Amino acid sequence: MSFDRLIKSIVKMQNPTVAGLDPKLDYLPDFIKEEAFNKYGKNLEGASEALFEFNKGLIDALCDIVPAVKPQTAYYEMYGWYGVRTLQRTIEYAKEKGLFVITDAKRNDIGTTMQAYASAHLGETEIDGKLFESFGGDALTVNAYLGTDGVKPVVDICKKNDKGLFILVKTSNPSSGELQDRKLDDGLTVYRTMGNMCEKWGEELKGEYNYSGVGAVVGATYPEQLGELRKALPHTFFLVPGYGAQGGGARDVAPAFDENGLGAVINSSRGIMCAWKKEEGIEPRDYAQAARREALRMRDEIVSYIGKIELPAHSD
Amino acid sequence: MSFDRLIKSIVKMQNPTVAGLDPKLDYLPDFIKEEAFNKYGKNLEGASEALFEFNKGLIDALCDIVPAVKPQTAYYEMYGWYGVRTLQRTIEYAKEKGLFVITDAKRNDIGTTMQAYASAHLGETEIDGKLFESFGGDALTVNAYLGTDGVKPVVDICKKNDKGLFILVKTSNPSSGELQDRKLDDGLTVYRTMGNMCEKWGEELKGEYNYSGVGAVVGATYPEQLGELRKALPHTFFLVPGYGAQGGGARDVAPAFDENGLGAVINSSRGIMCAWKKEEGIEPRDYAQAARREALRMRDEIVSYIGKIELPAHSD
Repeated sequence: MSFDRLIKSIVKMQNPTVAGLDPKLDYLPDFIKEEAFNKYGKNLEGASEALFEFNKGLIDALCDIVPAVKPQTAYYEMYGWYGVRTLQRTIEYAKEKGLFVITDAKRNDIGTTMQAYASAHLGETEIDGKLFESFGGDALTVNAYLGTDGVKPVVDICKKNDKGLFILVKTSNPSSGELQDRKLDDGLTVYRTMGNMCEKWGEELKGEYNYSGVGAVVGATYPEQLGELRKALPHTFFLVPGYGAQGGGARDVAPAFDENGLGAVINSSRGIMCAWKKEEGIEPRDYAQAARREALRMRDEIVSYIGKIELPAHSD
Repeated sequence: MSFDRLIKSIVKMQNPTVAGLDPKLDYLPDFIKEEAFNKYGKNLEGASEALFEFNKGLIDALCDIVPAVKPQTAYYEMYGWYGVRTLQRTIEYAKEKGLFVITDAKRNDIGTTMQAYASAHLGETEIDGKLFESFGGDALTVNAYLGTDGVKPVVDICKKNDKGLFILVKTSNPSSGELQDRKLDDGLTVYRTMGNMCEKWGEELKGEYNYSGVGAVVGATYPEQLGELRKALPHTFFLVPGYGAQGGGARDVAPAFDENGLGAVINSSRGIMCAWKKEEGIEPRDYAQAARREALRMRDEIVSYIGKIELPAHSD
């Protein structure tokens, strides 16, 4: 019912990062595509099988050094239901390898509909008295423009199944300010107001290490807001996109962490997935090893700013 | 690149409504479930096949009197990738029957990720130079908390493929006001500000009948705001949920329409899907005919408030 499982992995691995699994066909070495196309055809099925092979290679190479992966659902839906099957298989495989899986779906709706999303991604679906796990992630990203009615159903399922959610607060993109930076009539920005709601919603999902199961998405590209929100939201764990390809660096994400080096996971997607394209003289078959090297480099760079990551003293 | 196709169907059928296809197993007559469970097993696959049979029956019974259907993705994801396959098949079947399909997915993200969602739901996916349609809806609901970066990629694909999008403006749920009703420092509410952005984004998707391809979701449960927004947003077509089961009546949705009876489609999901459960002495095998009767009743009730629906004079 919180991010305690994720926090323990982060401390154990001394690595507060998450590898984004947002595979596009362009990111895949040719040999993977060719094998899949030969076997399944040059179509949505073949492409989806190729993505799964690519993901498996990455997961194998990362699972002992990175605590979490974050599949982005858009890149799977792009390949139709075959792609969504690859999403499900990827989540299953990552969990078998001990990874914490954040399903980045930014789902949002109300009441029974939001309950359906929460059941799909974090819970079970009942069929004639039997329960089935449909996707089985450990945490889900959620857009809370619709208010509490769109959050409560997820909180309830997280409480029951020891899972978490991350709510969009201040996103990493250039135009995030159009709405999120606007000030409300009480002088607080929209993103800060959303952050305050995360603290409130999180009261139902308290964890052992100060952080609740209701986290927030805050972009690496806005270091000032990261620092402001870290101070203002002491129980809200951050998922930080925008490192690397989008321009955020290790110095930019340092304000996301508390004095113990906890409080955030930093995501890198393209940087890790496409590392093999940047290394000179590398064999495409070694793409996963290049990903591992980049993940280690990223870890070391970030840890150099925050130091040793420790559980809070009073939680021992 | 607008809602002109939908508008023409509405005028032709004299029916400004959309049937929500949000099937839960509980809504299905036993005979459909039993057949599917016997053939495919009492599992995610069997349940998904049952949902598809149910949907086909509804589509067959509605396609000559209702211009559009709105599958809600949550109820398909609930049944895993099998459910998502049923979503794809449902969209395909509805389009074969001439229906306009609004995929209610409330997707949101930025840049290339949002492009992936738009390709998945409204466009095509390229695989080695060949294009594949993954889901193939005619319009997509979108949550624009992330600003223009989350809308532009959808607008671009709508322009290319003659499709549309509906942006969440003022949702039908009780807590929609927590953020949406808050006033910004210029005195405008968040929902009104979002509505104004719809007008702006819509400039790129102009239609022949005053309305652009960027619509807005505005709940039937807030008739006052419906009227305010209808006046303020003359080029923004409304998708109106909340009629029926959520409490909105025909009188409540009347302010959503302009002087020609255009400007909105009113959605009913449970009311239509579960009509067979409310009729006395009905055979469950006649569920689709009960749905048709309820759809006709709803049409007549709404049209009694708005009168004959006509294309604007200057567009002839």
